[in-house]
Amino acid sequence: MENTYGCSSKTTKDVSLQEIRDRLAEFAEVRGWVQYHSPRNLLLALVGEVGELSEIFQWKGEVARGLPNWSSDDKEHLEEELSDVLLYLVQLADICGLDLGQAALTKIVKNAKKYPVMNQTST
Amino acid sequence: MENTYGCSSKTTKDVSLQEIRDRLAEFAEVRGWVQYHSPRNLLLALVGEVGELSEIFQWKGEVARGLPNWSSDDKEHLEEELSDVLLYLVQLADICGLDLGQAALTKIVKNAKKYPVMNQTST
Amino acid sequence: MENTYGCSSKTTKDVSLQEIRDRLAEFAEVRGWVQYHSPRNLLLALVGEVGELSEIFQWKGEVARGLPNWSSDDKEHLEEELSDVLLYLVQLADICGLDLGQAALTKIVKNAKKYPVMNQTST
Amino acid sequence: MENTYGCSSKTTKDVSLQEIRDRLAEFAEVRGWVQYHSPRNLLLALVGEVGELSEIFQWKGEVARGLPNWSSDDKEHLEEELSDVLLYLVQLADICGLDLGQAALTKIVKNAKKYPVMNQTST
Repeated sequence: MENTYGCSSKTTKDVSLQEIRDRLAEFAEVRGWVQYHSPRNLLLALVGEVGELSEIFQWKGEVARGLPNWSSDDKEHLEEELSDVLLYLVQLADICGLDLGQAALTKIVKNAKKYPVMNQTST
Repeated sequence: MENTYGCSSKTTKDVSLQEIRDRLAEFAEVRGWVQYHSPRNLLLALVGEVGELSEIFQWKGEVARGLPNWSSDDKEHLEEELSDVLLYLVQLADICGLDLGQAALTKIVKNAKKYPVMNQTST
Repeated sequence: MENTYGCSSKTTKDVSLQEIRDRLAEFAEVRGWVQYHSPRNLLLALVGEVGELSEIFQWKGEVARGLPNWSSDDKEHLEEELSDVLLYLVQLADICGLDLGQAALTKIVKNAKKYPVMNQTST
Repeated sequence: MENTYGCSSKTTKDVSLQEIRDRLAEFAEVRGWVQYHSPRNLLLALVGEVGELSEIFQWKGEVARGLPNWSSDDKEHLEEELSDVLLYLVQLADICGLDLGQAALTKIVKNAKKYPVMNQTST
């Protein structure tokens, strides 16, 4: 199956933000890490991961959709950095008491109103 | 109900990354925006949103969990910026042909092995 | 005169990091802003400006050296965002009690040792 | 001597942005690295370094001015990351054909007009 961008899309399981949030909350709790999770600590950790994500792309010039020439190791590295950004984002929202999934859907609706679809003249 | 951090947790609906991905793909397609979605364009847009997220926290000094003194407007603004980061992250993974949800779960498992839970001797 | 990259280089005055630092310190002092300048506040402000800098480049695809097709307004906007990053960077170093200019020269020397120039066989 | 923030200020040499720029241009040229220096490559490298800078501060909670409890190793690490951000910023401006030092002074003047000093009633 292909996604919108024509890349092969290998989604096999529908992962929810709540599942990730719950796993991360338990992860931090059993390790005694909750004490370090203040909003700004998590925000700076997020910025750090965005930096690592950027480093993957920094000397590459333009990168084609679907990463056609990337090795599986490079793709796995990218998956890890994308995940790290997500994991801190989910924790930051959680510690702020905000529902990230609901907020995202709300933002999509708001964007849809802000950028209405132009009607194209049919034939 | 309270979350791990003792904040009230108002999750009402379990939103999946696949749902967000599909909505965003359709959003871009009907607006003719797919042409602008190259990996590095989306990455820089993500960095831009992380900047806006940081601006919310920049002059506040330490911020308490659950944002006890924040107005509902400020919380809503924060929800929007957190969402914007998520939306670009989901699209970046999608255009790279990667499954962000599965990658996140894999990373959590990897982190669990890297940082094993210490058994504390009970006394 | 052209710089290394073949862009016209219009440097007219040699500006030092110490001059910028002194001006910013006075700027903050006379406005009563020193109280807001903690290291992490300034760091997050820096991240915010890097976000604004990235926004300038986000939908452009690859950008040619010297920005040949940019309007003077767009170039001026870029100069402002580059400056904002610099101004917070200088203030962050200053509040940490570090000498940014000296540190930069030291880092260049360190990099030169780390990445020695390869001797090319002459023919 | 102390700076505005009451930190000991050990500036011994006045380093100019033009000096840094010239050294970096030569550094890249003799190593054959100029080919990799496109505006967006340098921008993403800058974002990467901002990430590393943020990592230094991420788990620390608020940090006091002058870094009173930091080891000299930690301070040196911070100097290196601050420098890395500066070095990419200088190169990004250079490749865009912009004069960073002059732009910074112009921005300070612009900010001074935007945020006028309030006259306080003398007594």
